[in-house]
This record gives sequence, structure tokens and C-alpha cells, in this order.
Amino acid sequence: MILNNRDKLREECGVFGIFTHGSCDVVPEVYHALHALQHRGQESCGMALSDDGVITGFKDTGLVDEVFTPGRVKKIGQGQMAIGHCRYGTYGGHTRENAQPLVVRHIKGGMALCFNGNLTNTDELREELELSGAIFHSQSDIEVIAYVITRERLTAPSIQEAVSRAMDRLRGAYSLLIMSPRKLIAVRDPFGFRPLSLGRRGDEYLAASETCAFDILGARFLREIRPGEILTISDKGLESNTSHCQEETALCVFEFIYFARPDSVVEGSGVHTARKRAGAFLASARPAEADVVIGVPDSGLDAALGFAEKSGIPYGVGFIKSKYIARTFIKPTQAERENALRIKLSVISDTVRDKRVVLVDDSIVRGTTSARIVRLLREAGAREVHMRLSSPPFLYPCYFGTDIDSAEHLIANNHSVEDIRALIGADSLGYLPAEALHKLAENSGCGFCDACFTGRYPVAPPANTEFSKFDRRIHNGSK
Amino acid sequence: MILNNRDKLREECGVFGIFTHGSCDVVPEVYHALHALQHRGQESCGMALSDDGVITGFKDTGLVDEVFTPGRVKKIGQGQMAIGHCRYGTYGGHTRENAQPLVVRHIKGGMALCFNGNLTNTDELREELELSGAIFHSQSDIEVIAYVITRERLTAPSIQEAVSRAMDRLRGAYSLLIMSPRKLIAVRDPFGFRPLSLGRRGDEYLAASETCAFDILGARFLREIRPGEILTISDKGLESNTSHCQEETALCVFEFIYFARPDSVVEGSGVHTARKRAGAFLASARPAEADVVIGVPDSGLDAALGFAEKSGIPYGVGFIKSKYIARTFIKPTQAERENALRIKLSVISDTVRDKRVVLVDDSIVRGTTSARIVRLLREAGAREVHMRLSSPPFLYPCYFGTDIDSAEHLIANNHSVEDIRALIGADSLGYLPAEALHKLAENSGCGFCDACFTGRYPVAPPANTEFSKFDRRIHNGSK
Amino acid sequence: MILNNRDKLREECGVFGIFTHGSCDVVPEVYHALHALQHRGQESCGMALSDDGVITGFKDTGLVDEVFTPGRVKKIGQGQMAIGHCRYGTYGGHTRENAQPLVVRHIKGGMALCFNGNLTNTDELREELELSGAIFHSQSDIEVIAYVITRERLTAPSIQEAVSRAMDRLRGAYSLLIMSPRKLIAVRDPFGFRPLSLGRRGDEYLAASETCAFDILGARFLREIRPGEILTISDKGLESNTSHCQEETALCVFEFIYFARPDSVVEGSGVHTARKRAGAFLASARPAEADVVIGVPDSGLDAALGFAEKSGIPYGVGFIKSKYIARTFIKPTQAERENALRIKLSVISDTVRDKRVVLVDDSIVRGTTSARIVRLLREAGAREVHMRLSSPPFLYPCYFGTDIDSAEHLIANNHSVEDIRALIGADSLGYLPAEALHKLAENSGCGFCDACFTGRYPVAPPANTEFSKFDRRIHNGSK
Amino acid sequence: MILNNRDKLREECGVFGIFTHGSCDVVPEVYHALHALQHRGQESCGMALSDDGVITGFKDTGLVDEVFTPGRVKKIGQGQMAIGHCRYGTYGGHTRENAQPLVVRHIKGGMALCFNGNLTNTDELREELELSGAIFHSQSDIEVIAYVITRERLTAPSIQEAVSRAMDRLRGAYSLLIMSPRKLIAVRDPFGFRPLSLGRRGDEYLAASETCAFDILGARFLREIRPGEILTISDKGLESNTSHCQEETALCVFEFIYFARPDSVVEGSGVHTARKRAGAFLASARPAEADVVIGVPDSGLDAALGFAEKSGIPYGVGFIKSKYIARTFIKPTQAERENALRIKLSVISDTVRDKRVVLVDDSIVRGTTSARIVRLLREAGAREVHMRLSSPPFLYPCYFGTDIDSAEHLIANNHSVEDIRALIGADSLGYLPAEALHKLAENSGCGFCDACFTGRYPVAPPANTEFSKFDRRIHNGSK
Repeated sequence: MILNNRDKLREECGVFGIFTHGSCDVVPEVYHALHALQHRGQESCGMALSDDGVITGFKDTGLVDEVFTPGRVKKIGQGQMAIGHCRYGTYGGHTRENAQPLVVRHIKGGMALCFNGNLTNTDELREELELSGAIFHSQSDIEVIAYVITRERLTAPSIQEAVSRAMDRLRGAYSLLIMSPRKLIAVRDPFGFRPLSLGRRGDEYLAASETCAFDILGARFLREIRPGEILTISDKGLESNTSHCQEETALCVFEFIYFARPDSVVEGSGVHTARKRAGAFLASARPAEADVVIGVPDSGLDAALGFAEKSGIPYGVGFIKSKYIARTFIKPTQAERENALRIKLSVISDTVRDKRVVLVDDSIVRGTTSARIVRLLREAGAREVHMRLSSPPFLYPCYFGTDIDSAEHLIANNHSVEDIRALIGADSLGYLPAEALHKLAENSGCGFCDACFTGRYPVAPPANTEFSKFDRRIHNGSK
Repeated sequence: MILNNRDKLREECGVFGIFTHGSCDVVPEVYHALHALQHRGQESCGMALSDDGVITGFKDTGLVDEVFTPGRVKKIGQGQMAIGHCRYGTYGGHTRENAQPLVVRHIKGGMALCFNGNLTNTDELREELELSGAIFHSQSDIEVIAYVITRERLTAPSIQEAVSRAMDRLRGAYSLLIMSPRKLIAVRDPFGFRPLSLGRRGDEYLAASETCAFDILGARFLREIRPGEILTISDKGLESNTSHCQEETALCVFEFIYFARPDSVVEGSGVHTARKRAGAFLASARPAEADVVIGVPDSGLDAALGFAEKSGIPYGVGFIKSKYIARTFIKPTQAERENALRIKLSVISDTVRDKRVVLVDDSIVRGTTSARIVRLLREAGAREVHMRLSSPPFLYPCYFGTDIDSAEHLIANNHSVEDIRALIGADSLGYLPAEALHKLAENSGCGFCDACFTGRYPVAPPANTEFSKFDRRIHNGSK
Repeated sequence: MILNNRDKLREECGVFGIFTHGSCDVVPEVYHALHALQHRGQESCGMALSDDGVITGFKDTGLVDEVFTPGRVKKIGQGQMAIGHCRYGTYGGHTRENAQPLVVRHIKGGMALCFNGNLTNTDELREELELSGAIFHSQSDIEVIAYVITRERLTAPSIQEAVSRAMDRLRGAYSLLIMSPRKLIAVRDPFGFRPLSLGRRGDEYLAASETCAFDILGARFLREIRPGEILTISDKGLESNTSHCQEETALCVFEFIYFARPDSVVEGSGVHTARKRAGAFLASARPAEADVVIGVPDSGLDAALGFAEKSGIPYGVGFIKSKYIARTFIKPTQAERENALRIKLSVISDTVRDKRVVLVDDSIVRGTTSARIVRLLREAGAREVHMRLSSPPFLYPCYFGTDIDSAEHLIANNHSVEDIRALIGADSLGYLPAEALHKLAENSGCGFCDACFTGRYPVAPPANTEFSKFDRRIHNGSK
Repeated sequence: MILNNRDKLREECGVFGIFTHGSCDVVPEVYHALHALQHRGQESCGMALSDDGVITGFKDTGLVDEVFTPGRVKKIGQGQMAIGHCRYGTYGGHTRENAQPLVVRHIKGGMALCFNGNLTNTDELREELELSGAIFHSQSDIEVIAYVITRERLTAPSIQEAVSRAMDRLRGAYSLLIMSPRKLIAVRDPFGFRPLSLGRRGDEYLAASETCAFDILGARFLREIRPGEILTISDKGLESNTSHCQEETALCVFEFIYFARPDSVVEGSGVHTARKRAGAFLASARPAEADVVIGVPDSGLDAALGFAEKSGIPYGVGFIKSKYIARTFIKPTQAERENALRIKLSVISDTVRDKRVVLVDDSIVRGTTSARIVRLLREAGAREVHMRLSSPPFLYPCYFGTDIDSAEHLIANNHSVEDIRALIGADSLGYLPAEALHKLAENSGCGFCDACFTGRYPVAPPANTEFSKFDRRIHNGSK
């Protein structure tokens, strides 16, 4: 549910790459793939093409459909390879320079790069680079990554070897695509925090954050890029470097609960099915006496269906979510904020009137939207509202590519479950037990990162976030 | 489901009006109401205000959010009354003059008018008016209505009496709002083809095509405007003229099946509930042996849930519909058209793989989209696909405000059910029996128009559609 | 000089029409012609086409280049005939309905109309029409004209005869183009207040407010449409009805002084030459002891050159006028308003430093801009500033198509020449003597209207401007 | 005259900087200054602000008024210092990354930079930087300059010292503004190819390419930045480093003839006056028997006036140049190209009919536009056309910041004066003698660069322009 952006987590990015043979019309392919990945980032987007070794790019703030207008698409031209990126954020137009892919020019060959994730040692790397004469145009990690690779490139025998050496220096989460004039390289950090899959269509290869990008193009899923793997796609075919692969892996479990699209398959498990399974676990662990189970659109619907099936309580459609964009003419009163929600979400009274309702959502960040939704249901005649969440409470910030950025902003960090229940005005409140998390993706062989719920960080978080990029402010030393 | 506009019916219009006391900020109210009614028309929209008797208006092609930008909203100003309109169509920018409301100036007092419906005697009225010196700026019925009322106004003691006299001349479907400098008048044709409701918020009155416009504004539903009623709202309160009310009424039954928003209440019946009921009737009348019931988003979902509940077959989520706008870079090949669908609609394979699937949609117009959806399901592994439709087959054109305009374009008109089944590639196909239609709105006391299914027209269709507005072409006699 | 719109007169309109043989690409022709006439109206513009008798149109607020974007031009299509219009005004977007041409539909044949001028009996005509059942969509005279013609059309044997009968009813200034499905009709009121010329290119005919529209299209000037003439262009060639021609004519003399483009030829006289002549008259009648003569760009330059030649004082370039559009971030202080002028107009100091300067402009409306310009010159080192104006003082409002609308706003109406001199801070001030006006267009056989200077109105001004269109406010009777 | 961009020289850039005390509303100041400098570059523009040491920037393709919309201006905020830039070019939207100022972030302090000019040793510098690990985002020299300064900054005691050391490495033309968190630094290359002036307003300092930017802001000209000077403006006042100043200087003489605005003062000489002087030299050196002297708007007008005064032949206004933007619907025929000119430029026939005309322009690049203008005059009745140019023939490419880029494109390079005369269809043709160039700016103590006319380059041109930035194509090494 994306009612109020400040009250909702935002995924950081989606990446896509395609390698074809001979110059062809790849721009529509990237356009459609980014469209399928748009839920992973709505702030800005971009693509870069390699046409006979010449790399060009275009990026801007806005949705895929806004940035890549028909006129723009026509101008971009053809290519043998391309990468694309969509990014979340609300910094406004100023962040055009933070959009990706980053295209860099260098005597050893140009490069375009984009990634999904977050480095935890950015500040150290940046200081070291700047002290040896590097200048930066942006605040984004991708520029740091580009520099580290370029420095290694000066002595490495190949770009993929430069990438391998660079990985010794990069810490944190990164699912990375690199396009050199003749190669497309897909890389995943050793823990594999963020998903990255390999697809195929005829003799073409594709890489994408999620498999839904393959489906939209009529390509088929081949396999995941392995955590720690460097996969090089070139005219010679595939070449895999697994020297950074390790035993311990840590895919973000919230991909299953919220981030990924329901029709994507992650680590062998359908996301829709994983969410229904979360609902079923909830029904067992946090049961409720009720007449109907409804979900908050769109992200609570799958778990609501799972809850209904497991509990035997009928599934109902409780809300209509408007398909159309509307501004709110908000005045800063509580009543007006209620209206803002009403514009986006309408209750179907027949479903809830005089009923005991189980209301399923994926998570609570600050709680204000949940409170409003509970109130809407009561106004529509619901007798009881039992809120159920398909994830455990957020307790710890995330440093691996989501914006769960600060413990103080998380309602669960400083309130008991009972307090939260009272705050949102529900008759009962139940969270998914943390133990259930690892069972969501049934057949997966991988490990999961659940640090935001448990505080168990696979990689140490940044030591000192003072005067760092986590300030999210531009730093300019004085003189 | 709005996959392919040409393969889908389109409602003609939504209307809204508000009467307050003293000049106030009514523009955001109209904006939000039109937003709630946007599903009834996406081609153009407009509003007109009366501020101390001075009527001004603005209208253009585009969605509500596109036409009423923040800058525009600021310029429009305040008012004591306002009416608004949204209209469907794909004629492009040229139809700005056909947008509504129509603001006319006249010595007896200005007027703004908008309506939902379609006159069947436009051509006669227009000829008569033109031969007595009238000139027309548009091809829209609303201009004809404005003229007929104005002519009566010259001799009538009041505007509402002029409206009453005009109704003797107008034939067909019209749910009409008229704003004079000091009155807001809501009118419904004697058959009540199109819905029109009255709402209240404090001491303000509202009128809207659907109750969802009241909900978004925090107003409550008071009652329906009666078929044939002329309701005048003024500083003196409500005044009802029922001289044109008659026994026989004929509300469009397709409002329940497709047009109205699920959270609206029409003639005392929730639309969502009516659709679930259609699904339940289908399950009884057209049963299927299957493992899962899925609906085509968004319009098939409610009936699918009703089918599942009645049949005991589990309800499943079969599709993800993209929230984002995408252009298709279509090349005119079948393969590409398949892709166009794929961009909008993605199958959740886990739901249908190796399953016998009941696929529920509201109707079939030409059949091409249905065929593509069935194919998508089979590609995703569905073992059998049993298509069920929550309406009977379209057999006759509609003359009362929808675009079911010509018998030849309706697949059911010239194909048997078995032929259609084969064409769309389903294992079985079942339509809602026409008998069930009148049971969809359980508590309604009104009659229904089901002419598109049965050919029983409550009002005679236009005699001769040659050289008429049904040509949808501008006619200019030569000299 | 268009520094400050409120301090400058604005012409009301430019019209253009073209008649070709067979459907062809007339839109670019109209586009270019309107571009050449753009100085006559910058508020809104539009065009209407007749293609095989079917009339369509498009109009909007904005400059020609803004309204007729490449996409729009492509959509409009082809035609055998077209008319176009540009209109001045600053009412903002609301006046889209007041833009021209007006396209009306009628059983006797559609029509598109546009005109330059102003009726003086609008109010009477409108009342009469409304009382016989007419409704109006706009406040513009063109709609009144359309109605009057249509009413006559009902009984007249031809459209040109209907126009002739209508002329008996219309009073005031009108240079009018009417396009019926097969004819293009050019009409000028009996006094010929506004110019209208006939041109030819091969076998095509053109009509335009000014000859510069012919030049841009490579057409040649044929003759003026005579005051009172109805010229019908059809496949049969030209047909002239001169039944309304009369002895007394009254072309607006201000066309020579300010409105028309210097390269246009009006009534046989080049406008540039007429302006130089005004400067020469000034030099004789209002001499000055000075070192340099400069003009205020752009409208004072021609007269300055004439003044310099006649007086023998050297001509200089005193100002640079910026070619680029700039907003001013005005704060409401005098100092900031000075800046607003500075952004548009820069003094060339070398030209005026330590010099006695003759400063020539076309007219003074309110005087504030003149005062600022004088100040700019003194700041740049001018020793003396002698202001000379190439027209007499405005003393009376104009009712014939310009916006010299109210005596109180005219500085000369309530100030002596000496007062005005002091107010603008000049060392001396001299106006063109009224006697010189009739000598500006040397070879012209026509009479002139100089009512704004002399109060001698060729047609009686509207009796009562209360509650009329001259209020420039929408009137809506109550009840 | 900017009729046809390809047939006209384009200046490369304009720069502006302002240093105030305390955070204030500097954005409108930069906006207006860039507006005044807009003639120096219309492709893209940008500005950067320092507010309490935090540097932010915005830039885009488009005119100043298009890029800095009211909404954008509001977002940019306040600052103590700012620099701005406008840039010429027609590469379209892709060059957003080549727009200036460049904002770079570095541990020693951020920087924003912009410049007017062109380095001649870019390729060497870039190779050296890349081989030591630098990556580039753009193809622009400003990024090279930023790198060179940053590298020096690592060991230099201050930013101005780093700039001084960097100047030992930079070769070519640069008028450069650097904004560090607390200082504004204005630099001019040792030859002073491009102008750069210092202004003052109260206790604020300003730097600008031309003095017209001071006039628009009500500031006064203080002095020129000296060739080779590094002027540092800080809270401590002005600090000048003249260690790179040298005897030989070489200001581009074409600034007087074409680039600078007539109201600017360059090296003590008013530009308008310098142009009149060029016209006077022409009249002496290349006299003509004629009846009238006219100039091609806008750049030929000043010299035409000088020619007229010197020769005693009357000055006339020969052309009207349209103030409005128009697209041409060009089809690739000669006739249509003629029309394209006609849209922009209209002859005033009265001025030239039956006359012997001296036509003055500033220069001829390819000759096609001149030929068209001569033809226009003959069509309008000119008996003879004597073309005179206020500069000598272009014979050599320029490497110092203009786009006189390749000898083959210069008509004078491979045609005799007589050949050119015949090509453009004039009766006689005369160029300004090269000897006169150094007398245009009468009181100037500086030297001039006239390499484009004489081939005498003050600095050696780039040795090898193969595979270099002069290709103006993106280079990406393979592998």
C-alpha cells in the first residue's frame, strides 16, 4: 500500500541489462523491462547503450514513461547492449546527477554502471580516493564503485579481473551491472543481499533484479546470479568468476514480504505464494474470531487470502484503490489528512458492515496510516477490527539498500505491541513471528538477512555515521 | 478490465453538483468528486461555478488531474455552487468543444449544464432549432438541451418550469444538472436510464452520478433522484417536481455489471455485492469442475469471488495488473500485440500451473483480448480454462449513453457460444442467463433496461441513423 | 515599444484567409500568415479549414507558435480553404471561448468566421437575439455577427446575400472573413475602419489585414477590399457586392502610426515611409536644438529617422532591446520597476553621453514608461532630453477595435502638455499636430478616423455603456 | 543576424559571478545577468550557489528563461555567492552533462567552476589524468580544469595557489570563475583571449564576461580582470595574483565585430562605437556610389550607420526582423529555403525600390544567407546591391572558443573576393581591411587575436586533432 510515502518503506532500485548480437532496437526492451521493475524505484530512471563500442546514456528524474517519451526513445538509437535502472527517492529535480546508470569515459575504455544496494564503507573509500586526486560529481555509491574499478583497471588484464579486485574493497550490498564497450558484467555481493537473475531469449542474455522483467519481454528465467559471482557476458558466451562466493548468504527477506512483485520468482519461490504462506502462518500464530478477512491494497491482499484460507474465515474485498492520480488540497488539519486517504482508498461498506474484520497489511512503519484505515472501517460499520501484519515489528535500521534508516522513526522500536494496538485503534494486533520468516521461501537454499527485525547484521554497519553520506546532506569541507 | 480500449465498453459520463451557502472554496470539492467519478469518463472534463450569480467555467480534454492543475485550480476562484463533468471518448484534442459543462449566456440568466446519457431525437430537435435560426458550436446533445430549455425559458415563469416543459420535447436518456445563477437543478429522464443521487453534508446538498463521489467528500447519501423528477436546490431548500415521473422505469443494468464503481450504492444495492451475486448465479447456472477461480482485473474480480464462494472452488489471484502507465512500441504483428497485453497484465504462475482454472470476466465485446488472456494462462501452465462471464451476450446496440453502438461489432451477434468458445480457445464458456439480471440488485424497486442483451428497448431507437449524429461526423450542408 | 503592456495600446486582431483549388496543405500557409500578423494580437489565435465542405477548427490562447505546435499542425489536415485569426488580450486562459475563428454548424451549411473590429450596437443586437431564443457561448461580437447572418440566411437565396442583409443591422468597425463550405467571403464595414487587402498567388486568392502576410507567402498584393464591399471568392472566381459602399470612409489613422507593420502597405502608402514622414512633420512643427536623435525601439525608430533627416541632427542608436524573454522578479518598489525596464531596454551610453538628445516615441498613454526612459538616458549622461511624439495626444476613447477605452486613463485627457513634460522629466515635449495626420499616407484616396485625437466619431459611440460588453465582465441576469 | 545557425558564428559562452555578504536572494541576480549574457550562448545554462559553504547547482539545456522557471528559481534557495553560465550549441538534450557550472565534491572542499574559452592541450591533459586513475563524466574542458586544480589542491596551501599551479599546465583560452565554499575566484588566461570584467554594487563584487550584465543589475564597472590575473574575492576583500601576467596579450577582435553586445564596454571601448568605426573605415577603404545604406539586422546595423555617416549616403531601414518565433515547415527545396528567410526577415520596399543600395553585414561564413538577402533586395526593386562587410575574410580556424572550426567550411578560404561576389549576386563586394582591426577599440592598451583572419596564432594550435575532442564524438577505447 502506497498511501503516504513517508509511512511506507521504499526499495532502493531495480536494474536490467540485455546483451544481443549486432546492433538492434534495444531501447523498447529496456523501456518495458524498467516498466516491469518500476515498483522498485519511482524517483528517477535511465539507460545506457553500447553501439559498436560507443556508449551513450540518458537519465532523468521521473517515471519510466515520463523520462522515456516517444521523442526521447527515437533519439537514443540502437545498440548491441544496454543497461537500465530505476531508483526511488523524493529529493526532487536536484538529484538528476544521482540517477543511474553512470556513464564514465576513460582511456582504457568507457563504462556504464548501475546497481541496487548500498555500500557500508563508502566514506572510507571516498576519502581515500579524494586524497589521491579524485573528484566527485554526485553523492551516489555508484561513482565510488566506478572509481574503485577504474583504479584497478589501470593494472588489471581485463575489466572482469578489475571488478574482481575491486570487490575486495567494496563492503555492503550490491547487485551490479557493468557495461563495457563489448561486455555486459553482472555482479552480486558475496552475501547476495539484493536479488539478481539471469534470463535468456533466443541467443540473447538478460539480467534483471526480478524475473517479472523477463516475463514482460517473453524471455525465460535461467538462474540466479550467485552471491559473490561475477558473470561476464560477451560474444564468447558466459564466463563465471566465483572466487568471491562464500558459504554464508543473506538475501533480504523483505523482498518476499513487500518489495518484489507478486508474479516474480525469487530463489525458486513465487513471491505471491510466499506472501500467502505468511498469511497462513499468521492465521496459525495470531488467530482471530472474525467474520471476514480483508487486505490493505495492494501489498496486504496476498497475505489476507492466505490468512482466510488457513483460518476458514471468508475472504472479502474491503477496499477500492483509485487507479487515477489525484492531488490533495491538504490543509494541515487532521480532518484533511483523513480526506487525503479517502481519495486513494474507499471502503466497500457491504463487506464490513456489522462484521468482525481481520485486516491484513504487510507492515507498520509509523502507524498513522494504519490508524486512519482502522477508523475508515469503523465508520463503514465494522464491529471489530483485528489487525494482522505479515512481518515482524521493525526494530533496527537497514544499511543494505532500503530506507528503514533510523531506529527512532520506527514505531515498534519504542512502543509495545499493546501500545501500538491502542494507537491505531484496533481490537487486537498480531505480527508475524520472526521464526516464520525463514519458511516463507520454501525451497530456497539461500540464507536470509532479517536484521531489521532481529538486529543480526551479516556485515557490520558503518562505524560512524557522523559527517557521512548517511547524513543525506551535501558535505563541503570549508577552507 | 481496460486492456484494450477498442475491446471494452465505455461509459459516457459522470456528473456532479454541489450547492453551498455563501461563496466558498468549491473547486477542490468538484475536483475530488470528479476524481471519484473518473472511471465514468476519461476523455475530457470540466467544471462551472456560480459566484454571486456570475457563472464561469473551464473544461478541456484530459484526465481530471491533467486539466485541473494546481495553477488552474487557483485561477478558477470561489463559488456558491458548482457542477462538474467527466466524459469518455477517443476523438482527441478536437473535442474540446464537446466537453462539458456547457456555459451559455442569455438575457434571462446564464446557465451551465452537463449530463450523462443520450438523446434519441437529437436530429429532429436540431433541425427544428436550426430552421428557426439557432446556430450550433458543437455536436453534443447538451447544446440541444440548452436550446430547448432556453426557448421554453422565454415564456416560462421559472427555470424549473422551463425544464419541465423542455422534458416534453426530449426523448432518450439523460441525468442532467443545470446551474442557473441561484439554483442547482437535478433532472432524470422519466425512465431513469442513468443513475443520479442526492447527498448531503451539513447544510450543503450534492448530486452525483454515483455515491462514491459523496464518500470521498465525507457527505452522506440521501436518496436517488427519481426517474422523471426535477429537483431544484436553492436557498429555499429542496423543491421537487414529479410531474414527469411514470410507472415504468429502466435503469441500465450494466451499471451493476461493469460501469459503476464497486463501492457505490445504486438503487439501494452495493455494486460490489451485486457483482458477487452475478458470480454466484453464474456458478449455479454455468458450473465448472475446476481447482481455482480467478478474475480478470479489475472488473472480473468481484464476480470471481462470488463464483468461488458459491461453488466452493478456491479463489485465487491469477494476475498482476501494472499500476504504471506504459506505451507499447507496437509493430503490427500478432506477436507484438500479445506483448502489449503482457505489459499490462502478468500471470502469477503459481496460481494456475497444472490447475483447471475458472476465468471470470464481465463481458466479451470482440473476443480478441479474451483469447490472449486464455493463451497467457495456458503458457503459464493452466491445464484447463473455463471462461465465465457475469453478463449475457451483447446482441443489440445501445442508444442510451454507452458505446455498444453497432450490432456488427458485437461478436455474440454473429457467432454461437460454441463458436466464441473456440475462437477464444477456452475449454468451456458460460454466460450469465438474462433471467438473472433483474436479481442482481436485490432490494431495488426500479425496473431495468437490458436492451443490449434482449433487444427490448424502453424507448424507440432513432428511426434513421443516416446523416445523423450517429455518424459521428461533422455535417455541413453544401450550398 | 512593448515594455509594459498596460502602458501601451493594443491592436485588437489580425485576420487571414486563403482560397485554393483542391484539397492541399493550407495549414502551414495560415501558420506563416498569422506569424506575420502576430503583432496585431498575441493573446489567442486559431484557424478553421474547409475540406470538401467539412469545416473544422482549432484555437487556443497563446502565440501562433505555441498554439500550432508541430503535432497540432499535423493533426489539422488538409483543406481547400482556410481562415485564421490572432487576437490581443491579457484575460488569461479563460478566454479560450473568445478566440476566433468561430465555427458554427447549421442545417443551411456550416460557417467559420473571424473579424477585426468592434460593433457599437452589440448590446441591442444581443438582447434582441436572446429574446427570440438565441443562446450565447461567449462574449465576443463574432458570435453576434454569426447569429445575425444565420437568421438572414434562413430566407436569403445565398450566403453573400445573407451577409448583405446582415450588414444593414451591424454598426461599427468590422473587417470580416466568412468561410462557408464552398466560399470565402471578405467583408469590410462601410467606413472601412480596419484594413483588409486582397492578394493573389497563381490561381489562389488570399485576404489579410496587412500585406506583410502576402509577402511572407510569396503572394502579391492585388487591391484593398473596399469599405462596404462584400467580396465572394469561389470556384467561379471573384464576385463583388458594393451595395454598402458609401462616400465617407474612415480608416484608423493609428494603423500608420503604430499598429501596422512597417513593411506593410496600407491604402497605397508604405507604413515605414508614413512614419518617417510623421517624424519629418514633427521636426518642422516641434523642432529642437540637439546633438542626436534617437528612437524608442521598436515603434519610435522610423519617426526618429525621419526627424533626423529633416532636422539635419545626426541619427543615433540609443537603446538595445533584448531579444530574449525574461521574467522580472518584481517586488513592488519603484526601484524594482526601474529594473524591469532595464531588463528589456539598455542604453548605449556612447550615443547619449554629454549630448542633447531628441527622443522620439509614437505616443504616450499613461506616461510612466516614458518617465523611466528619460531617467535612463539622464543616468547614462544625456545633458538634455527633448521628447517628441509621432502622434497627437490621446483625448478620447476608441470604440472601433483598439483598447483606448476610457478617457480617465489617458494622461493627456487631464494634463496639459507642460504638466506631462514635467511628469516625465523631459526638457521639452512636442506632439505631432493633428493637421499632419491626414498627410501621413500621401497617395491615399480614403478618409481617416482620428476620433481618439479629435473626438470626431464617424459612427455614434454606444449610447449607454452600463451593463454592457464594455464592462468586460460576464453578465448573468438573476433569477 | 541569426537567420540560419549554420551560416553564422556562435560564441561559446558567457560567465557571471556574484559575491555578497551573508545569505541572500542571489538567484534573481544570476538569472538577470545570464539573461543579459544570453547572446553569448543559447544552448544550455546553469548556476551554482554557495550557502554557508554548501554548494548546490542546477543546469539544463535551454534558454535562461526556460531552464530557470519560477518554480525552479524558488527551489534553488539563497546563497552568499553564486556563479552562472550560458553556453552555445545545438547538440540537443544529450549535452546536459556538458552544461556548466560543474559542481565537484572533494574532501578539501567542494568547488563549482565555469568558463568561457577553449583549451588547446585538453587531449594530453586528459590522457595523463586518466592514466593516473581519473574518470570523466563529460567531454568538456571544464572537467579537465577541475581535475588539474584538484590535483594541485592536494598539496597547495590554498585554492588560489592551486589555481596558480594549475595555470602552468593549462594552455589556450579561458576566462574562468571558480567558487569554493568561501571564495569566488576570477581567472583569465595569460593572453586574455576572452573578456572578463569586475563590477561592484555597494559592498558586493561581480564578475562577468561583459559589462552589460552589470548594467542590468545596477552595478558599476570597476576594471577588467587582467590577462593572466587570478583575482580572489572573499570576506577579506580582493586579492590579486599577477604572477601569470605577461607582456603579450591577445583579446579576440571579433568580440568587437560580432560577439559582444553593443551596449557593453570592452577594454575601454564601447562596442557600438567600435562597430560604427568599422563602418566608417569600410566607407573609406571600400567606397560605393549609392543612394542608401542599410544594415542586416541586428549585427550589421551599427556598421551601416557608421558607413552612412562617413560616406554621406543616407541611412535607411531596409528590413524588419520578426520578433516572434516561427518554425519553418521546410521541404528540402531551394524555394522553401528562401521562404525560411522570408519568415524571419522582411524587406521594406520603399527604402530600396529603384535605389542603389549599400548592404552592410558583419561577416560571411558560407555565403548562402547573403545570397538570399541580396535576392530579396532585388525582388523588392533595388537597382544595385553593394555588399560591405565589417570584418576581413575568414581564412583560418579558431581554437580559442568560437566555432570557426574548419578551414574548408569558410567560403573565403577557397574563393576569391570576386568569386564570392558572383556567388552572392552582389554588384560589388568589399571587406574591412585587416589593418583596420586594431583601430576598432581606440583607447585599448591590449593586444588582439586576429588569427582567424591572419593565421597568426598567439598560442600554437593543437598538434593533432585526430581522435581528439575536436572530433566532437564520444571516444571509448575498445576491449
